[in-house]
Amino acid sequence: MSGTVHIAFEELSALLRDILAAHGCRPEVAACIAETCAIAERDGAHSHGVFRIDGYIASLEAGWVDGQAVPVVEDVAPGQVRVDAMNGFTLPATAAARELFVAKARRTGLATLLVRNSHHLSAVWPDVEPFAREGFVALSMINSMAYVVPHGGRDAVYGTNPIAFAAPRSGQNPLVFDFATSALSHGDVQIAAREGKDLPAGSGVDAQGQPTTDPQAVLDGGALLTFGGHKGSALALMIEVMGAALTGGKFSFEVDWSDHPGAATPHTGQFFLLIDPDRGATRPFAERVETLVRQLHATGVERLPGERRYANRRHNSLKGIPIATDQLARLRSLAGR
Amino acid sequence: MSGTVHIAFEELSALLRDILAAHGCRPEVAACIAETCAIAERDGAHSHGVFRIDGYIASLEAGWVDGQAVPVVEDVAPGQVRVDAMNGFTLPATAAARELFVAKARRTGLATLLVRNSHHLSAVWPDVEPFAREGFVALSMINSMAYVVPHGGRDAVYGTNPIAFAAPRSGQNPLVFDFATSALSHGDVQIAAREGKDLPAGSGVDAQGQPTTDPQAVLDGGALLTFGGHKGSALALMIEVMGAALTGGKFSFEVDWSDHPGAATPHTGQFFLLIDPDRGATRPFAERVETLVRQLHATGVERLPGERRYANRRHNSLKGIPIATDQLARLRSLAGR
Repeated sequence: MSGTVHIAFEELSALLRDILAAHGCRPEVAACIAETCAIAERDGAHSHGVFRIDGYIASLEAGWVDGQAVPVVEDVAPGQVRVDAMNGFTLPATAAARELFVAKARRTGLATLLVRNSHHLSAVWPDVEPFAREGFVALSMINSMAYVVPHGGRDAVYGTNPIAFAAPRSGQNPLVFDFATSALSHGDVQIAAREGKDLPAGSGVDAQGQPTTDPQAVLDGGALLTFGGHKGSALALMIEVMGAALTGGKFSFEVDWSDHPGAATPHTGQFFLLIDPDRGATRPFAERVETLVRQLHATGVERLPGERRYANRRHNSLKGIPIATDQLARLRSLAGR
Repeated sequence: MSGTVHIAFEELSALLRDILAAHGCRPEVAACIAETCAIAERDGAHSHGVFRIDGYIASLEAGWVDGQAVPVVEDVAPGQVRVDAMNGFTLPATAAARELFVAKARRTGLATLLVRNSHHLSAVWPDVEPFAREGFVALSMINSMAYVVPHGGRDAVYGTNPIAFAAPRSGQNPLVFDFATSALSHGDVQIAAREGKDLPAGSGVDAQGQPTTDPQAVLDGGALLTFGGHKGSALALMIEVMGAALTGGKFSFEVDWSDHPGAATPHTGQFFLLIDPDRGATRPFAERVETLVRQLHATGVERLPGERRYANRRHNSLKGIPIATDQLARLRSLAGR
């Protein structure tokens, strides 16, 4: 039995940092992964919060990801930055390239950041939201590891290939969304299996490529389908091109972790685009986005993507982040405290 | 009763050009719309081919679009071009900006073209395919006129808001797709109504905002839904931001053509992005895309987006474009021949 305590953001972030450092991450790597993980937990995005720490540790222990990797940033064009994450995590790679990337976007009006040879286990919205806070429109796409069957195909070729978008709003938190182009996330399938529930029809196939609603059949060598039929599949294809071919990285189907049992962090490529919206717009951009949001609310849309997270953020920043006492004890033990 | 004849691409294009010129388009405008319309017909994309000529004429006659408009091109940043189509068609506006746009993309590694105050009645794939033939990755998004209800909303806010993507393939026609973010296109609904068929569940609502599968109820003051639930709706939202807020144009819900009965060309804003993929890629980009395509075919995907059109193109370029004799006679009469 366990109660719940509330922990300050900085305290949770420091604890997660110590855990990652204790498992082989250099300080800068531990710091940025811990912060992003704590942000997800604070914002109520539990599937990408503290829950993920075991996955990070497993990949580090399996030698699948290099917690000591030092990313190599290259200035390849006036509007393009390329980063080789050197088989480390994506977050420190983007952090290393960030200043150059933003400077290019300010100077040319837009820029792209191309990350390859990287591991991404966090949510994608924390990748784009900070850019919108600096006034940019931000778009990101990530390919990962083959787990999704293309429309009309038999076998998994695509990753769950998420896309994320953020835009500034006048006087408000940014407009932010992200979603996987698979019908479900891998976590959704695991939860359904644990709870003995069926998957929605049209979301997965078994190991023989036959449609199934049995989550265990999907987990036992099966695969997911894309959302939205051929349209979602076209998006997944685009993200495969942007995350791998454009970055110089690997396609999802080219990644093989069979020599690293226990590994849990998807090997990924990530595409970022920033646009400075006030260079081309004829009216202040953030005010225009606000006009659109007002119209959406006026016609019955109660909650925009991201608004639930912002509500959690406000609440938990004041009251502390709720965490089960036994989970907290386990985290402290992992940190060697 | 009518037979079918075959007409050469150049002959059809010239005929359409004469029709548009006879209905108020200046020569450059008539030429680029006629060519794109003939391309769609040649490629078997009949919904955006000769079928659309009546819509162009109706909008010109209703005074809704200006066939004489001269677009104003502005160089707003090292990587951004902005065009005011001056209430003319989009195609001549993008044509006027094309050289500057491509030069910027070559120089900086990527560029955006932002078109506003424009009318787009053609398919979107012809907008992006030519850029991929020049070696670019091309992305485009168009907002239009309120006809689509956001996920969780009651009333139409978004347009059918299509997205298009193109990327070069080594030794092959480019990889190209486009799709509307609405569950169906407006044309799909019209065809279902004419044929007395039901719409798929979850694609439309009636004038009271209630779900319906009756196409006539959608046409009589109803609206469409987005494809793919909240994910498709998030894309439609992004396209609204990119097509209107970013270009300095109008949101779909801000467009009102009630003073122009008969008008048929959606008032739109269009976002273009070009990326030079060989600046950042570590291996030749088009070869990498080809590797992905081979894997898709190997795992059972028989036809990629766009491949049916390429097959029609090959066939009709050799044999001529099939057209019904009575339709051809009507086109000649519209051209004053």
